[in-house]
Amino acid sequence: MSIVLGPNQYGKAENRVVRITRDTARHEITDLNVSTSLRGDFADAHVTGDQSKILPTDTQKNTAFAYAKKHGVSSPEDYALALAGRFLDATPAATSARIEVEQYAWDRIPVGESGHDHAFVRRGGDTRTTVVTLERGAEGAAPTPHVISGLKDLVVLKSTGSEFKGYLRDEYTTLAEADDRILATSLVARWRHTSTDVDWNKTYDSVRDTLLELFATTYSRALQETLHLMGQAVLERHPDIAEIRFSAPNKHHFLVDFSAFPDVDNHGEVFIAADRPYGLIEATVLRDDAPAAPEAWLATPGFC
Amino acid sequence: MSIVLGPNQYGKAENRVVRITRDTARHEITDLNVSTSLRGDFADAHVTGDQSKILPTDTQKNTAFAYAKKHGVSSPEDYALALAGRFLDATPAATSARIEVEQYAWDRIPVGESGHDHAFVRRGGDTRTTVVTLERGAEGAAPTPHVISGLKDLVVLKSTGSEFKGYLRDEYTTLAEADDRILATSLVARWRHTSTDVDWNKTYDSVRDTLLELFATTYSRALQETLHLMGQAVLERHPDIAEIRFSAPNKHHFLVDFSAFPDVDNHGEVFIAADRPYGLIEATVLRDDAPAAPEAWLATPGFC
Amino acid sequence: MSIVLGPNQYGKAENRVVRITRDTARHEITDLNVSTSLRGDFADAHVTGDQSKILPTDTQKNTAFAYAKKHGVSSPEDYALALAGRFLDATPAATSARIEVEQYAWDRIPVGESGHDHAFVRRGGDTRTTVVTLERGAEGAAPTPHVISGLKDLVVLKSTGSEFKGYLRDEYTTLAEADDRILATSLVARWRHTSTDVDWNKTYDSVRDTLLELFATTYSRALQETLHLMGQAVLERHPDIAEIRFSAPNKHHFLVDFSAFPDVDNHGEVFIAADRPYGLIEATVLRDDAPAAPEAWLATPGFC
Amino acid sequence: MSIVLGPNQYGKAENRVVRITRDTARHEITDLNVSTSLRGDFADAHVTGDQSKILPTDTQKNTAFAYAKKHGVSSPEDYALALAGRFLDATPAATSARIEVEQYAWDRIPVGESGHDHAFVRRGGDTRTTVVTLERGAEGAAPTPHVISGLKDLVVLKSTGSEFKGYLRDEYTTLAEADDRILATSLVARWRHTSTDVDWNKTYDSVRDTLLELFATTYSRALQETLHLMGQAVLERHPDIAEIRFSAPNKHHFLVDFSAFPDVDNHGEVFIAADRPYGLIEATVLRDDAPAAPEAWLATPGFC
Repeated sequence: MSIVLGPNQYGKAENRVVRITRDTARHEITDLNVSTSLRGDFADAHVTGDQSKILPTDTQKNTAFAYAKKHGVSSPEDYALALAGRFLDATPAATSARIEVEQYAWDRIPVGESGHDHAFVRRGGDTRTTVVTLERGAEGAAPTPHVISGLKDLVVLKSTGSEFKGYLRDEYTTLAEADDRILATSLVARWRHTSTDVDWNKTYDSVRDTLLELFATTYSRALQETLHLMGQAVLERHPDIAEIRFSAPNKHHFLVDFSAFPDVDNHGEVFIAADRPYGLIEATVLRDDAPAAPEAWLATPGFC
Repeated sequence: MSIVLGPNQYGKAENRVVRITRDTARHEITDLNVSTSLRGDFADAHVTGDQSKILPTDTQKNTAFAYAKKHGVSSPEDYALALAGRFLDATPAATSARIEVEQYAWDRIPVGESGHDHAFVRRGGDTRTTVVTLERGAEGAAPTPHVISGLKDLVVLKSTGSEFKGYLRDEYTTLAEADDRILATSLVARWRHTSTDVDWNKTYDSVRDTLLELFATTYSRALQETLHLMGQAVLERHPDIAEIRFSAPNKHHFLVDFSAFPDVDNHGEVFIAADRPYGLIEATVLRDDAPAAPEAWLATPGFC
Repeated sequence: MSIVLGPNQYGKAENRVVRITRDTARHEITDLNVSTSLRGDFADAHVTGDQSKILPTDTQKNTAFAYAKKHGVSSPEDYALALAGRFLDATPAATSARIEVEQYAWDRIPVGESGHDHAFVRRGGDTRTTVVTLERGAEGAAPTPHVISGLKDLVVLKSTGSEFKGYLRDEYTTLAEADDRILATSLVARWRHTSTDVDWNKTYDSVRDTLLELFATTYSRALQETLHLMGQAVLERHPDIAEIRFSAPNKHHFLVDFSAFPDVDNHGEVFIAADRPYGLIEATVLRDDAPAAPEAWLATPGFC
Repeated sequence: MSIVLGPNQYGKAENRVVRITRDTARHEITDLNVSTSLRGDFADAHVTGDQSKILPTDTQKNTAFAYAKKHGVSSPEDYALALAGRFLDATPAATSARIEVEQYAWDRIPVGESGHDHAFVRRGGDTRTTVVTLERGAEGAAPTPHVISGLKDLVVLKSTGSEFKGYLRDEYTTLAEADDRILATSLVARWRHTSTDVDWNKTYDSVRDTLLELFATTYSRALQETLHLMGQAVLERHPDIAEIRFSAPNKHHFLVDFSAFPDVDNHGEVFIAADRPYGLIEATVLRDDAPAAPEAWLATPGFC
């Protein structure tokens, strides 16, 4: 028996890259949080302290900023693929590069008919995400890309059309069945593409619209069922998506008990929004013929 | 000399009140964070431990939820005024009640022509706020209301039209003058009304629009100048607003230096968004004939 | 009537200054978060955009770092006084300078008898704070210092020796009286000195010890009473402290109801620690002959 | 091809369980954050909305609190094993139960010789963690336990004895080599036991001491090397630990450039502590003969 180095990776996390496109007087803004990491044969750095195969995280940072200009950011997915390719080229010992991007949306400040040319207000709400992993191919072969698109912090709520009943009971069960309750979650969703020949922005919008539409228009017997319906619709409408994963904290809204108060009743009208604890539902919906891609999901937290 | 009790207040902070209006199939949602507090002659509770004049914070919580139904929430200001009045009635020892409310905006999920009837997505972005202080009047007189409306976390950015130069220099000055820079802030603004005969929602929208418009359409020689222009316009357009206060962290975006890199230049195109430290500008714009109202601002943090 | 500039201040917030003293092989670490601000006649910057009286926040940042070396940091109070003096010297238009400091404690890693010479572990727990305001004196006179020392996030809990009963009741009261409950808070305390001829570090330790001792050793009929006892003891033991202010969120621990469960009872043994809402108690204890010092407290949030 | 349910789990996250042991006048406090989840054959809940196999997250919460009394909490590991066992018993469809616990340390308030009997101050600093996964065995066989112990937010810093040089360079490299720098990280470490016949508290203390000792006493040519030395020592001293995983953000401390200032120099004495971006190093150290245990690590974020 001996003690050895196991899986490892390193990189620069949370580079706050802001790209202004100003080729005309009508500027565009792209606001990103970029995290890079490299995997490969970096045992020397760990075991003997020899850094000669290590592309410093500082250089990774410089490259992330430089590529925002040199390559541009037509979409986070496209930018991440380019950046990952660069890192494999620059780092012979790396066998794969992983780029994670969050994108914060901005709107033009509504002045005049089409909004201001160079003044923006941050939209808030959910954040678009991507995780791109590029695996080096065999000698002479092209690398293998894995692209996961996604969003997080999409907070949705339905004030009726949700029940929870018929569940398993034991001696610690005190929950009353609910025929009509608030269902709310702050959704994290990530979906894996099987191709890179994708209109990333159009597909992102379509998936987001589908998630919202299914959440709104389907009756819910549990958050699990709702997630499944959402995932199913995304896969039905997007043949190049192999799987979608959800992490959905149940944002509990408890009906407030007014029974002791004079002249106040509460027919599903006043709730307290609770912080902790919270139900947490995680689930995957996938095509049964889709090859698994564990490399694509490595180091991506928040999913079972 | 003796050691005595000085100013004090107590209450229940951050009651997460969610009100669903469901009189018809088309529901409305109002999502609030309500903090209550009472001031007055509560020395016994502090000095001798006698609680007989203390309306418990638990009761304050119950009342905040009950009033969301009993009185309703046509606006955070109107709801806060009603709640403050209730607390003065219920607590003889209280000389004033302070209610602070944050309101989180939700949009209907866009399904069909006018959005879904009972499914919502949280808007994100800036939060509407109010601070209402109601002072008990003399025997038989009506209480005196103070209403401060506001917003926080309004993140705005202009990618040009901003300079900073001609400033004072000393031996620790290293900053280069900027002819063209990014100006960005996460604005907190609070404005004080001199009346309660106000269409709160309409006025709120108008002030928010004015703040955005002035930020977008004026040239900036410093964040100070921009805030002043914003405040001036708000007061010019709203005769019943006596003063407006701003707390504006400068969200620095530093141009990234590509001079050492081959084939990449940077003409105001790639920036790093910095976290700390940050410039922090605080300023008040007011009418010179407006009577001061220190009671209105007591315990409201974030302003000079 | 005209619209004018009111109170204002500006500065650089949250400079993360880390000072290593390495005159010998046994290093010392001082870890600070420093926020500076200036008040005075800065109307030109706001109204006309003329920055000629403005010492940039970038220069303030540089000075904060330079003074960590040039003056040193024997205590946050002493360092802040020196820095404030420098800003009044460097900025003729400033009438006062306000320096806020947080200090994070580190311990030596326990290796050998007296801990390692240059390896440290961050202590966590409460943070020491200070707010120094230096007001420019009349022509030729020395400036007037105001020194507030303090701490925040001191989380304390007693598992018995606390009751809450005999309070005012109304129709929204549902709280049951408690003979024996958990009392817990995350304390913020700030105390104002009337002198600068103080051993700042020794006094800080003494006040902190006193706060802990009184919390532990006195019976509590309400958090208000406990705070008052703590404040009283601090003032009795420290003649140069004129007043102490507390902001104390009640960290509620609710007894969990096991009455429906077989074979489990709960005699004050299992609690759920709640997040929101929370009681919030704020109070001042002061000497009745201490002159008020509103300048000292300007822009310091969290107190009534 | 069809669209199917993939991996999934559900449970109640962040139950804030506080257990007071009060069998004598000298109380003990155990302060936990407990997250539970179940995996198994729950497809009905997802696909058809049938909840009959689902033990509600509300019941999981009740059980977590009840077991803090019924079983007690001699250590987070022991408590989590008992709770996981209960969930497998109560939920026939579950094939495994995962319990994650964080424990917050409290100290007695130092009054008298041995500290106060029932008054405590929260220690702050790093948090002890555990992740227990219990897999149901074959018919009649005992379940298989996986126990991962750990800690997070252990912030350590060495002010000398660290270099970084000899690294790979490309055209985006601007970093200067460092002979003597600050090395700091906020460590997350998790180690997997191969047995449950362990003195959990003693082992925890020993591993934490080892991590600190190695960080302090070894020279560092990179954070990677330091982590490896720390991991190696843990495994050498604890035969029942099969592997240890680290996630270590490099908390950068940049030397401040005083070269433009008169009369101030900086020989490794004044640093700015930076927030973002940050290097992030993740690594595993393991025994080469230890069977892998992917089940043990499922859904545990923050590791490659």
